[in-house]
Amino acid sequence: MSDGFMIKRLVVCGLGLIGGSLAKALKANNTVGEVVGWGRRASSLEKGVELGVIDSYTLDLQEAITNADMVFIATPTLIAENVLEQLAGLKEHWPENLIITDGASVKGNLYRKAQALFDEIPPNLVLGHPIAGSEQSGVTAAKADLYQDHKVILTPTAETSRDALAQVKTMWQQAGADVVEMGVEEHDEILGATSHLPHMLAYALVDALDTQERHDDILRFAAGGFRDFSRIASSDPTMWKDIALANRQAILTMIDLFSDGLAQLRADIDASDEQALIGTFERAKHARDDFAAEFAKRKK
Amino acid sequence: MSDGFMIKRLVVCGLGLIGGSLAKALKANNTVGEVVGWGRRASSLEKGVELGVIDSYTLDLQEAITNADMVFIATPTLIAENVLEQLAGLKEHWPENLIITDGASVKGNLYRKAQALFDEIPPNLVLGHPIAGSEQSGVTAAKADLYQDHKVILTPTAETSRDALAQVKTMWQQAGADVVEMGVEEHDEILGATSHLPHMLAYALVDALDTQERHDDILRFAAGGFRDFSRIASSDPTMWKDIALANRQAILTMIDLFSDGLAQLRADIDASDEQALIGTFERAKHARDDFAAEFAKRKK
Repeated sequence: MSDGFMIKRLVVCGLGLIGGSLAKALKANNTVGEVVGWGRRASSLEKGVELGVIDSYTLDLQEAITNADMVFIATPTLIAENVLEQLAGLKEHWPENLIITDGASVKGNLYRKAQALFDEIPPNLVLGHPIAGSEQSGVTAAKADLYQDHKVILTPTAETSRDALAQVKTMWQQAGADVVEMGVEEHDEILGATSHLPHMLAYALVDALDTQERHDDILRFAAGGFRDFSRIASSDPTMWKDIALANRQAILTMIDLFSDGLAQLRADIDASDEQALIGTFERAKHARDDFAAEFAKRKK
Repeated sequence: MSDGFMIKRLVVCGLGLIGGSLAKALKANNTVGEVVGWGRRASSLEKGVELGVIDSYTLDLQEAITNADMVFIATPTLIAENVLEQLAGLKEHWPENLIITDGASVKGNLYRKAQALFDEIPPNLVLGHPIAGSEQSGVTAAKADLYQDHKVILTPTAETSRDALAQVKTMWQQAGADVVEMGVEEHDEILGATSHLPHMLAYALVDALDTQERHDDILRFAAGGFRDFSRIASSDPTMWKDIALANRQAILTMIDLFSDGLAQLRADIDASDEQALIGTFERAKHARDDFAAEFAKRKK
């Protein structure tokens, strides 16, 4: 794909599904020299060495970044802010060619953190977000093809070095991903709409049903439609608490937009307005059918 | 299962997936003598004969019920009211042992219709609802095992003949279903919560996103979570308009309950109340995980 592309030393901060899968993909591709794991606890890092996902590990971030040319912050959303802060504290030790990127679900909070941490946003900081995941988590679930045909969104800003951006882009392409660029704010609004809002609605629905007196009966008669609709309410609570806080403003805006629509639908049902109901349901079906057709093509 | 159980002449009113699948199941089981299709148009009925799902058809309801011992109203929700009205007009022609049952998604509207149509609710009217369906529809999609291990809810009232109820129950058991009894109102509240409300939310979400200026971009970056959450927004608009009208009161109540919960969640996000968010998400995850485990067992 990109002749001669090679990361000499990749540091994965926070070794789980996301960081482990990138390491495995680049190793499988022979586009990384060594992979070093860094984290606060040794357990998953030891497991990572055992599984061959990483070559070595350290709990010392300065040691980790020594001679590194790529740091991938692969921690949960809010912890990524702390890692960036720790990296900022080591700025004088950054190797000359170091690039820092990440995979957190929200970009605005990290960008604002970077603004607070540095006098000027470092040109070698390239924020990004791979749109991939799995029901499973942890380094044992890491797989080389997790990003194959998945989108990775990079959110360069005016400060970003074009070379650093190109390197991160090539890295993700080497992992099989389809790389797209957009603004930080645009990313958070789009993900707020398609991912964060649905998660909030699914959590709110299941919780609302669960507070009903006969919640056992209610769930006893729930069927396949409910199973699929509510699947994302089984997502990790801490991860989603972090996302809700990190992308607070966009999520609030989307909840309000949704609530307005639901209030209109409620009024149409209350008024038995058949034409309005058919109109809403048909528009939604049309949009959803289009999405499903496009999504099915994406997966080929 | 029930020695000697036999329907001599089953009339299926409205031949599609639901009615066709029951006919196929009973035929496969040799527990039905003949199956007659009745409807307003010949096309699907002709197809039904061609496929062997029904033995014959007629567009004349009086002819259809002659010598019949079981009528199954298998039309969409609101049309079932019309069929019941037509059957009421033929009451003097009802064979002595006739039983009338149905498979519509809402029971309260039909019960109220029966109250309006008859001086007394006929003891041989047994309202019911098979909790089964498919992405497909129409008689060509009918299959003998559609009801296998699925729940069928029957909603007998004080007026219902115990013998008629037992006959309908045995019929569904012969089709492989797990039959449960509950009150009309309870049925509509439970289905309002687990099926109708999620459909309204999915329609409202997709429609809200579709009205966004950059809806193409939004859906372009939607992933698997959104696909599953929104799947039910691809459901048939007319069918769901009917259900929204037929179960109006229970759906309005459930929308209000959900809206209260969402407003609380919005307030917790706005206040960055980590404990409240974790609490909501954990309760929801717990309830949803329990449901998923129970649902997986059901399917075995």
